[in-house]
Amino acid sequence: MAEPNRRVIVKAYPADLPGPEHFALETAPVPVPADGQALVRTVWLGMDPFPRMQLTDRPGGPPPIPLGSVMIGRGVARVVESRRPDLEPGDWIVCDPGWQDHALYTAAETPRKLDPDAAPPSAALGLLGPSGLTAYFTLTAKAGVKAGETVVVTAAAGSVGSAACQIARNLGARVVGIAGGADQIAFLKDRLRVDAAIDWQAEPDLATALKAVCRDGIHAALDTVGGATHDAIMANIAVGGRVVMAGFISGYGERKPYGNPHAVIFRRATLAGFLLADHMGDAPAALDRLAGWYREGSLDLFENVTAGLENAPAAFAGLFRSPPPGKQLVRVEP
Amino acid sequence: MAEPNRRVIVKAYPADLPGPEHFALETAPVPVPADGQALVRTVWLGMDPFPRMQLTDRPGGPPPIPLGSVMIGRGVARVVESRRPDLEPGDWIVCDPGWQDHALYTAAETPRKLDPDAAPPSAALGLLGPSGLTAYFTLTAKAGVKAGETVVVTAAAGSVGSAACQIARNLGARVVGIAGGADQIAFLKDRLRVDAAIDWQAEPDLATALKAVCRDGIHAALDTVGGATHDAIMANIAVGGRVVMAGFISGYGERKPYGNPHAVIFRRATLAGFLLADHMGDAPAALDRLAGWYREGSLDLFENVTAGLENAPAAFAGLFRSPPPGKQLVRVEP
Repeated sequence: MAEPNRRVIVKAYPADLPGPEHFALETAPVPVPADGQALVRTVWLGMDPFPRMQLTDRPGGPPPIPLGSVMIGRGVARVVESRRPDLEPGDWIVCDPGWQDHALYTAAETPRKLDPDAAPPSAALGLLGPSGLTAYFTLTAKAGVKAGETVVVTAAAGSVGSAACQIARNLGARVVGIAGGADQIAFLKDRLRVDAAIDWQAEPDLATALKAVCRDGIHAALDTVGGATHDAIMANIAVGGRVVMAGFISGYGERKPYGNPHAVIFRRATLAGFLLADHMGDAPAALDRLAGWYREGSLDLFENVTAGLENAPAAFAGLFRSPPPGKQLVRVEP
Repeated sequence: MAEPNRRVIVKAYPADLPGPEHFALETAPVPVPADGQALVRTVWLGMDPFPRMQLTDRPGGPPPIPLGSVMIGRGVARVVESRRPDLEPGDWIVCDPGWQDHALYTAAETPRKLDPDAAPPSAALGLLGPSGLTAYFTLTAKAGVKAGETVVVTAAAGSVGSAACQIARNLGARVVGIAGGADQIAFLKDRLRVDAAIDWQAEPDLATALKAVCRDGIHAALDTVGGATHDAIMANIAVGGRVVMAGFISGYGERKPYGNPHAVIFRRATLAGFLLADHMGDAPAALDRLAGWYREGSLDLFENVTAGLENAPAAFAGLFRSPPPGKQLVRVEP
């Protein structure tokens, strides 16, 4: 094909927050599929904070993304050309194209195809994909949330958080969301219909603010933020409370310590780490339940779209700087 | 009675480590039992680090012990005079006399009586009491230790630690003990028969030392130390590893943060706080099992005895300064 393949490469590892200066746009030939491969056109890229962990060569974490290579990222793509029996041109699939216009689908496993009539294909990158599944499994399998419990959701206007607020509500819990700024708080109250919303940017003391709305303590929390937010949760944890740590956007660049050993011991709290990969065997049943809530209207889709592959670095950087509510997406195909 | 009642009162709250200067010995009349009470003579006092938490008026912890009042402490006592139907003079009981020669037993519940022919009565303060139960429940109910797993025990020469090393061994686990100094290491190897012993005082890097003997990672840990020891455990935690936090002798005076959020998340580790009080309903069955191991010879009693009530403050202070192996006791009755 004559059309060039635009792609965004990693130019430098950020010392602290990532920004556009750590990436570069370049072009390369569109790849040609071999037997067993398919060429796909990236339509949507999902922006996730998690790959920030791989933008460092500090030892101890997951493998770094080599400098000069294409930035990794999950996407929704359409098949352009197929040399494998399980895909045909025009199929919508979920895959890992990275930040580029075209990619090869080379995985051994059968791809997850999407029905564009059942839900917008982009939902597979957030609510009906990793974000919804992360929210669902942390609240159910990990935290064991029961009806009537008070559940705190951090980064509540974000992709995982907005799913978690709605799922916790559907599970019968009392939901307290923490978010930053008046727009996010309005979103939590009006769109996610949380029982209480706390603006961490406006509160001089987050622990006191949580105490005011969690009089019986916090029974469960989904903590994707860490740091001072984690500490404020622990200051109000109920006896037997469960905190699932599914991220720590406050400290992705550093190994900041967390927590309050007094509270862990005296309130007999449990902190549990979460990675979605452990739960993929249960994903089909969970996606059915999420899709059922979506069809019923008790689980709404919130997306925030940035246009153009060239703007992916800015969209990614925005994740770390109080982004607009909902799942951050990049629309790659015009 | 003409005999004066010697008692140790709390004179001042320690800013950091407790020492004899925070206590004072005084005398008072021997109390007289009312109906439903018994007068007991303290024979043994068990020294536990836990009451350190109540030697502070910093908010957020358990209720402080008022200055000027008798220091709290668990003990083994004999009944001198009884005005309740469930006790007779000469009975051995476990009670909370505090640091004094005589006390009133006023509890509503039936006291736990001891048979001095079955085991030394002092064992009820350690191995066949709170220390053994703490070790047992943390390893079984909380950490779910399975045969073949690698279990790390902190403060392994102490009362809880020495019980935990032996119990973990009896459960079929591979036991790695951490202790301080050559004497403690010899005790771990020769008396507790651990699979590996690490001297934190001699190791420049505890995480590296642990790695050398935990090649497949740490599946479970009993952490009563916290701080740098906790960090070294987390640096080597296996996927799905469980750390039970049952104390943090490294930081009783302070709310020092702990840990490694990267490790919690990426290794999907669980940290769980433990208080023995939650498990007392299961204590009779657990004590039966511990007593069975004791009779069989697979659970040995290690005690370190200080003579004289007046030396209780020094014995307590010693808990925080690399004490001799085993349960620290004070023999009050000469």
